Amino acid sequence: MKNRRWVLATRPEGEPKPETFRLESADLADPGAGEVLLKTLWLSLDPYMRGRISAAKSYAKGVEPGEVMVGGTVSEVVASNNPGFAKGDIVLSFGGWQEYQLSAGKELQKLDPKAAPISTALGVLGMPGMTAYTGLLTIGQPKAGETVVVAAASGAVGAIVGQIAKIKGARAVGIAGGADKCRYVEEELGFDAVIDRRDPSMPEKLAAACPKGIDVYFENVGGEVWDAVFPLLNTFARVPVCGMIAHYNDTEPPPGPDKSTRLMRAILTRRLTMRGFIVWDFADQEPAFRRDMAQWIKAGKVKYREDVVEGLEAAPQAFIGLLKGKNFGKLLVRVAK
Amino acid sequence: MKNRRWVLATRPEGEPKPETFRLESADLADPGAGEVLLKTLWLSLDPYMRGRISAAKSYAKGVEPGEVMVGGTVSEVVASNNPGFAKGDIVLSFGGWQEYQLSAGKELQKLDPKAAPISTALGVLGMPGMTAYTGLLTIGQPKAGETVVVAAASGAVGAIVGQIAKIKGARAVGIAGGADKCRYVEEELGFDAVIDRRDPSMPEKLAAACPKGIDVYFENVGGEVWDAVFPLLNTFARVPVCGMIAHYNDTEPPPGPDKSTRLMRAILTRRLTMRGFIVWDFADQEPAFRRDMAQWIKAGKVKYREDVVEGLEAAPQAFIGLLKGKNFGKLLVRVAK
Repeated sequence: MKNRRWVLATRPEGEPKPETFRLESADLADPGAGEVLLKTLWLSLDPYMRGRISAAKSYAKGVEPGEVMVGGTVSEVVASNNPGFAKGDIVLSFGGWQEYQLSAGKELQKLDPKAAPISTALGVLGMPGMTAYTGLLTIGQPKAGETVVVAAASGAVGAIVGQIAKIKGARAVGIAGGADKCRYVEEELGFDAVIDRRDPSMPEKLAAACPKGIDVYFENVGGEVWDAVFPLLNTFARVPVCGMIAHYNDTEPPPGPDKSTRLMRAILTRRLTMRGFIVWDFADQEPAFRRDMAQWIKAGKVKYREDVVEGLEAAPQAFIGLLKGKNFGKLLVRVAK
Repeated sequence: MKNRRWVLATRPEGEPKPETFRLESADLADPGAGEVLLKTLWLSLDPYMRGRISAAKSYAKGVEPGEVMVGGTVSEVVASNNPGFAKGDIVLSFGGWQEYQLSAGKELQKLDPKAAPISTALGVLGMPGMTAYTGLLTIGQPKAGETVVVAAASGAVGAIVGQIAKIKGARAVGIAGGADKCRYVEEELGFDAVIDRRDPSMPEKLAAACPKGIDVYFENVGGEVWDAVFPLLNTFARVPVCGMIAHYNDTEPPPGPDKSTRLMRAILTRRLTMRGFIVWDFADQEPAFRRDMAQWIKAGKVKYREDVVEGLEAAPQAFIGLLKGKNFGKLLVRVAK
């Protein structure tokens, strides 16, 4: 049996390019004792993948050239030698950028297709949703009346951050790229204000949208957004640091002056809390997340949007676009129906 | 009655100079209804005072040119129209750089001269001790076997940070300026290791002294020490940000490259917690601090050292020296006996 898969061809310097990845067709053995054969239905594309293909040390083991690209997947069991799984079961896996996968079953999580669309296990009910939930509530701790700012506000994480902020009674201010996304964030998601990241007066508009300053900034982009947010952070503001997509393709440190001293001084005098996290640091919150998020979706308090590209072939271009903010909503590849 | 006092003459650009301050002799009225007249015995000199005479916004109201320099004092009641205080009472006050002070009594705290030397109310049993206690325990949260690093380790705050770290079962590594201070930190205070800040190979020696990396860095200096600490911070390290004495006299941001992005990225990938604080953010911990610290001093687990300069005249030079690390222990001015 043949399995098509994307491997890392070469570590990118700066922006990944199509030739960063290589499509292979490899033989796949039949499932061994205790194993299941999984067919990928959905592949999730997420910013963290840029870190995995970088030479720099990050929180997880990187993908070596020649290895299959990693990624969360929703898959169907097509053959099973494992009593825990039956043909036709739908599971959440970390199968990577490929059509098929053999698994011993340990890391698989069965999904109930009747409870929610199965793709949501990669988005609002999965890792991105839980990233928003844990980072905002555990580190950000928004209180009623406070101001919460998040960028990439139409994206898989940012959209959820703002909506949870609203549920907690805070004022949600989003930053998004372009008029369509801004309209969606304000009108569909119900943020109190939204600013176009591409607007040359973005910093002034952000300040105007935050008349009482910023109490929580959920950091997932860095760059110019961070520079605009920084002077507005209130005393005792909290900054969950979740990502820095504006810098993932950096090849050298930004030019001077060195703003790190200014940052440390602000942490001191404004008594900021800055804390980095990844979602699995808060793995014990998964039951609470699932319960709350399912209820919020049902009550119409949390909406989500998926940006679906068709076919495994499209994964590299979609991923390259993701790093430039070209997606609109949670980016997913439909690998098979 | 005449009262000699130091006022701010002019805001310093960079390093304060003797002419930054001006000694005045002013008339002092008799205490009015409900007031007490206080004679300053001890004046505390502390790094935060640099912030108070700066034009930059900080956490507290600044001292305006012409105003008396602020500072914690231990004073004697020499006349009282307040039923709460009698002549001869010794009180902790915030009387500033002057010989006498009138007070309505509200902010005064009576001291028991039999319980501890009264000067300790400005040091180990006062603001600096409580700064070490609250910042280390609440933000740093050292666990047994972890490594805690602190600079200015022979100073009023650093010395206490390391000794509390030891009490909690952590490894205490200090950084101090010069052989005498280093010897004191290791031999008298019992730190596990100490590195001379002036040693050109300080970064390598710090790395060697922290073979398992750094779990808590109590930041009170910034500058080269921070640069040496930064690469050694472990995943989930905590950084209470208490001061940045290396930068208080900066007149412009350090040259590039801009290291703030590298810092944010480290916060993210190493899931650092950086949090600024001032001691009064944790005012509710004062009873616990007093109880624990008194007990630790009695048990010989916490030692302290005072650096006493004689006479109010000496305050400016002593303060200028403090910002350069010339003091050895908690810096105090004996204003009167």
